[in-house]
Amino acid sequence: MRRGSNQLRLADYNQAVVLDLVRRSPGVSRADLQRESGLSSQTISNITRRLIDDRLIRESAPAGSARGRPSIPLVIDRDGAYSVGVHIDPARLTVVLLDLEGRVRLGRQERTPQATDPARTTAVIAEVVDGLLTEADIATDRVLGLGIAAPGPLDVDAGLLLDPPQLPDWRNVRLRADLHEATGLPVLLDKDVTAAATAELRSCGAGSNTFVFLYLGSGVGASIVLDNQVVRGTTNNLGEVGDLVVDPDAEQLEWSGRRGGLAAACVPEALVLQAARVGLMPLPNLNDYVAVDDACSALCDLASAGDAVASRLLERAARRVAVGLGVLVNLLDVPRVVLGGPLWSRLGPAFLPVVPDLVARELVARERVLVQGSAVGDQVAAVGAGELVMDHFLAPRASALMMG
Amino acid sequence: MRRGSNQLRLADYNQAVVLDLVRRSPGVSRADLQRESGLSSQTISNITRRLIDDRLIRESAPAGSARGRPSIPLVIDRDGAYSVGVHIDPARLTVVLLDLEGRVRLGRQERTPQATDPARTTAVIAEVVDGLLTEADIATDRVLGLGIAAPGPLDVDAGLLLDPPQLPDWRNVRLRADLHEATGLPVLLDKDVTAAATAELRSCGAGSNTFVFLYLGSGVGASIVLDNQVVRGTTNNLGEVGDLVVDPDAEQLEWSGRRGGLAAACVPEALVLQAARVGLMPLPNLNDYVAVDDACSALCDLASAGDAVASRLLERAARRVAVGLGVLVNLLDVPRVVLGGPLWSRLGPAFLPVVPDLVARELVARERVLVQGSAVGDQVAAVGAGELVMDHFLAPRASALMMG
Repeated sequence: MRRGSNQLRLADYNQAVVLDLVRRSPGVSRADLQRESGLSSQTISNITRRLIDDRLIRESAPAGSARGRPSIPLVIDRDGAYSVGVHIDPARLTVVLLDLEGRVRLGRQERTPQATDPARTTAVIAEVVDGLLTEADIATDRVLGLGIAAPGPLDVDAGLLLDPPQLPDWRNVRLRADLHEATGLPVLLDKDVTAAATAELRSCGAGSNTFVFLYLGSGVGASIVLDNQVVRGTTNNLGEVGDLVVDPDAEQLEWSGRRGGLAAACVPEALVLQAARVGLMPLPNLNDYVAVDDACSALCDLASAGDAVASRLLERAARRVAVGLGVLVNLLDVPRVVLGGPLWSRLGPAFLPVVPDLVARELVARERVLVQGSAVGDQVAAVGAGELVMDHFLAPRASALMMG
Repeated sequence: MRRGSNQLRLADYNQAVVLDLVRRSPGVSRADLQRESGLSSQTISNITRRLIDDRLIRESAPAGSARGRPSIPLVIDRDGAYSVGVHIDPARLTVVLLDLEGRVRLGRQERTPQATDPARTTAVIAEVVDGLLTEADIATDRVLGLGIAAPGPLDVDAGLLLDPPQLPDWRNVRLRADLHEATGLPVLLDKDVTAAATAELRSCGAGSNTFVFLYLGSGVGASIVLDNQVVRGTTNNLGEVGDLVVDPDAEQLEWSGRRGGLAAACVPEALVLQAARVGLMPLPNLNDYVAVDDACSALCDLASAGDAVASRLLERAARRVAVGLGVLVNLLDVPRVVLGGPLWSRLGPAFLPVVPDLVARELVARERVLVQGSAVGDQVAAVGAGELVMDHFLAPRASALMMG
């Protein structure tokens, strides 16, 4: 077990403001910082000195200046601090290491332990994190903290998984405290879809970004970004769309989800039930999310290989998902929809060619909406969890609470 | 036709800032204004003098002060300026006169002319507005402008009704320009649900207000208020929820709406079709929104009088609407839902006793959500349209464009 004290985490508000300005405007001078922050010249001088000593920022070479003393551009020292992002999908456990510039330095994807004891999973996560830091040769005291993205519903303020339908043994699990205990790192817990939207938003260009993110993994969820703000909901549980009816004529599956709902349309468990029903494959153990996920991969492989039955099944899933996206776009009047999550790279080949036109048919007040796959990729929720940690320390704003 | 010039509308930005401060903090002193606005003492002195001369604010009696010269409290002169709010529901035309404090001074509700020629309706609106101003004895040059709340989809920036399904003859109608022409007043056009949410938000207390507003009239729509901001959507067309499936097993009605959709569950046309099918009443002319609205009133009266068939029909509508509200709350994670619009006072008696529990059953991440009827009442969209005009002139912020 690693433990370490971290001076960075104790930084004052002014230091966080200055560091955030350098992150957002690489190459700013001390005079720029003074003007932007409203802090005194002496304070800027002290803070930048401390940030340089702590290896969080560094001076880069000044551009040539016609006259006078050139101002020295300040940039982030990307190796000065790191964060770890963990995404717990019931089938896939993703862990990434982000540097201070927000780049993924290392990433791992494991199968989520199907243990009925959450303590076992917590221990596995701690081992994976430890292995990643060892591999990257990074001391714990350079790690700002650990962000966990998990399926809801959550009590983000208390750091609890409440009663996630996708993790039936994880009722009222103190995940934040347990992982703080197991890793010695400050830990933040947030919802998978919120973390995913955070990472997707960071990958967007400047300007006003407004979109709906549809998360496809062992479960389905949505998140909403309005004018560069990730909407969280007043209990941080925004995005429960599994019960949204997308096909009134859908078959009744042998499972607990709503008939014709968005979850029944596209989550691996429902797709595998549908595939087994038409004789494409034997039914895996539905209590084993990894087995279900593997069977879903096999279904997607069959479709890619040209199997007509598998292809029709995924086409039907695409039609149903498009109806759900239509509901979201009609309600929220957003110009863009992004699809992502650990299932997306498998469904994308069947979905992307048809979903944009299918969604357009559903629209009431718009002609079109842009439908895109995640620019971040399958790790999107883990990356977002790491970015939420960075934000917590480097850009003090309202966000999930940190333990430790 | 009334025409008038209005000095108020030409006010500069600083004057708007000062007036907005007095509106929001009745009793502020000039010193308070100087501190809050950052403007110079001389500028505050000039602006307050001008606002007093224009009868937009007035000095009230100072509270007793122990020593020194007491500061003079400034308050809004509520008769200093007015706005007119118009709500065009296909069946009911509502017009209200708001004073500078935002109070409704006079209101009228008329049947919307069922003319196939929009010009006829525009003329009727102008007549009603003119009659209201005459009755209130208010000169046109004291009226800041006219706000119109109309069913979508709209092009708010161009002031156009695009292709409202509820107003089939109103395709690409230049409603803003036509009403400016007909009244001589500056005119602003916005969506019915956006206007309604604006008025409902103003009626809320201080603190953070987050809720979904479900509009029930000749059509159904939703609007979203997040932390005291009315969300508009990027084309100002947020809230199209009529196609949201709320009952997969619903009967197919003889109309164009989606089977099992929220519109099919609760708009007057669908309710009247359902009532006629079970023999409760003859079918009115479905192209006449006033006739349909009257038939719907008769249905609600039957239920109130204890007719079992009518009651069961409205109970089923309540169950379906509750499913729709559940979808919205699960998606948006809001703590409160408000129901309103011109149909609400008729449906409320059947809905309010049962909808809160029915919605609670649908929730995934919350135990409860507060379900309330509009605090503003049936005029909510008209009041909101008037408030949007006030905001446009008195608190310059991003909002719908004004013509004139």
